[in-house]
Amino acid sequence: MSDATQTAFDQLCDYSRETALLSSIEGLLGWDERTKMPPRAGQYRAEQITYLAGKIHRRWTDPRLGDLLGELVGSPLAEDRHSDAGATIRQLQREYDKRNKLPQTLVEELTRTSVLGQQAWEKARAADDFASFRPILEKTMGLKRQEAEALGYEECPYDALLDQYEPGELTSNVAKTLAGLREELVPLVAEIRDSGRQGPVDILHRHYPIETQRAFGSRAAAAIGFDFERGRLDVTSHPFCSGMGPHDCRITTRYDEKFFPGALFGILHESGHGIYDQGLRTEQFGLPPGEYVSLGIHESQSRMWENLVGRSRAFWEFFYGDAQQAFPEALADTSLDDFFFAINDVRPSLIRVEADEATYNLHILIRFELEQALINDELPVADLPGAWNEKYRDYLGIEPPSDADGVMQDVHWSAGLIGYFATYSLGNLYASQFFDQAGEDLGDLDEQFRAGDFARLRSWLQQNIHQNGQCYTAAELVERITGKPLSHGPLIAHLREKLGPLYGL
Amino acid sequence: MSDATQTAFDQLCDYSRETALLSSIEGLLGWDERTKMPPRAGQYRAEQITYLAGKIHRRWTDPRLGDLLGELVGSPLAEDRHSDAGATIRQLQREYDKRNKLPQTLVEELTRTSVLGQQAWEKARAADDFASFRPILEKTMGLKRQEAEALGYEECPYDALLDQYEPGELTSNVAKTLAGLREELVPLVAEIRDSGRQGPVDILHRHYPIETQRAFGSRAAAAIGFDFERGRLDVTSHPFCSGMGPHDCRITTRYDEKFFPGALFGILHESGHGIYDQGLRTEQFGLPPGEYVSLGIHESQSRMWENLVGRSRAFWEFFYGDAQQAFPEALADTSLDDFFFAINDVRPSLIRVEADEATYNLHILIRFELEQALINDELPVADLPGAWNEKYRDYLGIEPPSDADGVMQDVHWSAGLIGYFATYSLGNLYASQFFDQAGEDLGDLDEQFRAGDFARLRSWLQQNIHQNGQCYTAAELVERITGKPLSHGPLIAHLREKLGPLYGL
Repeated sequence: MSDATQTAFDQLCDYSRETALLSSIEGLLGWDERTKMPPRAGQYRAEQITYLAGKIHRRWTDPRLGDLLGELVGSPLAEDRHSDAGATIRQLQREYDKRNKLPQTLVEELTRTSVLGQQAWEKARAADDFASFRPILEKTMGLKRQEAEALGYEECPYDALLDQYEPGELTSNVAKTLAGLREELVPLVAEIRDSGRQGPVDILHRHYPIETQRAFGSRAAAAIGFDFERGRLDVTSHPFCSGMGPHDCRITTRYDEKFFPGALFGILHESGHGIYDQGLRTEQFGLPPGEYVSLGIHESQSRMWENLVGRSRAFWEFFYGDAQQAFPEALADTSLDDFFFAINDVRPSLIRVEADEATYNLHILIRFELEQALINDELPVADLPGAWNEKYRDYLGIEPPSDADGVMQDVHWSAGLIGYFATYSLGNLYASQFFDQAGEDLGDLDEQFRAGDFARLRSWLQQNIHQNGQCYTAAELVERITGKPLSHGPLIAHLREKLGPLYGL
Repeated sequence: MSDATQTAFDQLCDYSRETALLSSIEGLLGWDERTKMPPRAGQYRAEQITYLAGKIHRRWTDPRLGDLLGELVGSPLAEDRHSDAGATIRQLQREYDKRNKLPQTLVEELTRTSVLGQQAWEKARAADDFASFRPILEKTMGLKRQEAEALGYEECPYDALLDQYEPGELTSNVAKTLAGLREELVPLVAEIRDSGRQGPVDILHRHYPIETQRAFGSRAAAAIGFDFERGRLDVTSHPFCSGMGPHDCRITTRYDEKFFPGALFGILHESGHGIYDQGLRTEQFGLPPGEYVSLGIHESQSRMWENLVGRSRAFWEFFYGDAQQAFPEALADTSLDDFFFAINDVRPSLIRVEADEATYNLHILIRFELEQALINDELPVADLPGAWNEKYRDYLGIEPPSDADGVMQDVHWSAGLIGYFATYSLGNLYASQFFDQAGEDLGDLDEQFRAGDFARLRSWLQQNIHQNGQCYTAAELVERITGKPLSHGPLIAHLREKLGPLYGL
């Protein structure tokens, strides 16, 4: 390899790191906007974020970057596409190509609308007033359609948006995967309904003081491995995880004094995201080998810690004594069996982020279908609340009492995140498939959890997933780790194994 | 005026607003670093801030800016130096000239060292370990000496640094002003000591629950006019106020359960800064007519609300009932007379930000003298703690028990803020002189405070000071408003008027 090639590669890395520095600053602006910013500062914050997004886009479309990539794409450094250098060149080229299809003005308009859309959503949701949210959502959908057309697609406009979150994935594939999952889920949910049994969920609606929830949640997050020296936990109406530096990953949750699982499983979920972020190679920060693969893989990490670990009996065999001490009023006289059944209760519900493991994917299916209709211009935004409620009746048999707890419950659409929801269900599937493999590699995971040992699973995830960054695609990664392509089998098996005894199936 | 001139001016304003946008982002990075950032994120944060500071400096030294200013400096728009346009051109030219004297590398090194210096100070102060702080402080002082030489000065290197905070001010003038003040203060403090009376300060060391302090402090801040829709209040070890947008001004304080005045007067103080920031013309944000005049004038606002309002008897005639209800354990059986004497007790003490109105200026004098010695290379950093303790013995008759509560009590030097302290005493002088004039213009201020009316004073300040931005210099402003140059007379008169009856002078 020539010195010139190495020099070009070093320049490429410096260039990418500088762009990442700007993105990390944008990350802080976004985090602050959602957690701390004074109410009237929103308009100027939108200008700040838009300005940075414009700068970042200009860097991604700069011919200097194209020239460097041109020198490197056919070079020996790019030959092994899974090496750090190969992945760096491949992924930066991919992003460069995509970004160059987007006009600067569209990028800035999308950014500004996203920030203002979230602010409008916050207010509209609090006031249960979809009408006040509708204009900016219409604008967002129009801009997203423009974005899809500019990016181009294989089969349908939605492909272009999906590809931003789950690179290389097609709408038709996801639809097939979710249909397969649904075919197994619907009978399972019906069997559960017909069992006549119900989890004693009233336990979860007792009095759980918020400050104690915060402290208990923080202990649990630290126990599974979220590093508070390199992160923090705050409160927002819509929980999220945001990385803004190699040692700065922040998670949020929301508390309800009368509902225990909301904050706790939210914290475990976001901690799972955070543990992925904190498990990336810091020396590769700002370069593809130091970045997450796809949102589906990201979600596999959050779902694993939230559900496969956090809702396991073994986890609570370790933590339940602590929980009883922390919440004596609610739990002192409650058996572990009852508590375990309650947190694994399956029943159709309104709020996606509080849904049980089984029905959760029906929430996703609803959004996935509505998004496609919105982007394909088959559903006007004005008709969205009605369409939403109709699907909730059809798929889950329930009727949202308000738009705030219906169509406006999620931040995503307000922020222009269209094509994002499907990755949640993909994450559930990835999670179960990875978890089975971890069990094969590490021996009895339950035994480890029962002893409060979560480090072995975390190390396994770090080694097999986090440390690879983007050196493998999501599909390659699942094949490489488990020897099989993605399937809904492990998730269904896991659900039947856990829920079978509870419901006597 | 030609169209070309107007076009150049519009371009100048756009240019300045874009630089201000970057500075406002830097403001958020700095605020977050001191209030929320996870411990291990500091190194990367220094890179983020340094990067932005470099970009900002490059914008300030860009020949495009010089060209625009060249077109405008002799134009009709610049003729009235007190008009918005005139002040804009004048002040941007001043900053352009200064910035162009500083090498880019020095600016970036100063920024990085400032961020890392603050982080080192936080740790060293917590561990009471000056030795661990010394290396970076030595580096800072070396850089500040380079900065002074690069900027140039009239009489001494310290002039160059002082001019950054109090534009146009000379070290020799400040020394003369402080000497005059000292000549009157020392006998006053001696009379108080010899009076044999002491304020019943034990009242202030009773139990004041922190959450109640926070709520009470927030109410007081809102009552005097700090707008929480456009700002917020957080906790830091060193209180500060930071503006980061036309509607985003954030203040901080620190709480001690066993010391009431620390947080409350800190909040009133920072609210005073915040009210200035919030009183600037928002449509001029990012332009000199929308920016504060000088740190001395800024401090006049904080000191006025903290001391001239917040420690007045009239203020407490309005607030004391609320305070007694909020802190019944501490205050239910305490008379307003005793409370008022306690919060106005004068006695030499260790901590500048908790010092009384009279001895406070001696704390400043100590720092002002030590800074000059450090910058003139007459005092090695290694000898600083000894020199500090010696001056506290000489000027205040007390001995700091630790460096944490001695030489390391303030953040300023760690952040490279040399030449800053003097503006605190100038602020005290400005405050009294403005306050006297406000009383003449508005009638009986005490009567207004007694009725909880702080809006009239705030409007007066906004109209006479805030809304002028940088259209007048500090010296021009005090002449324009009070008809007289700055003098220590009003401060001494105010102190004698309040303290005389308490100590029977």
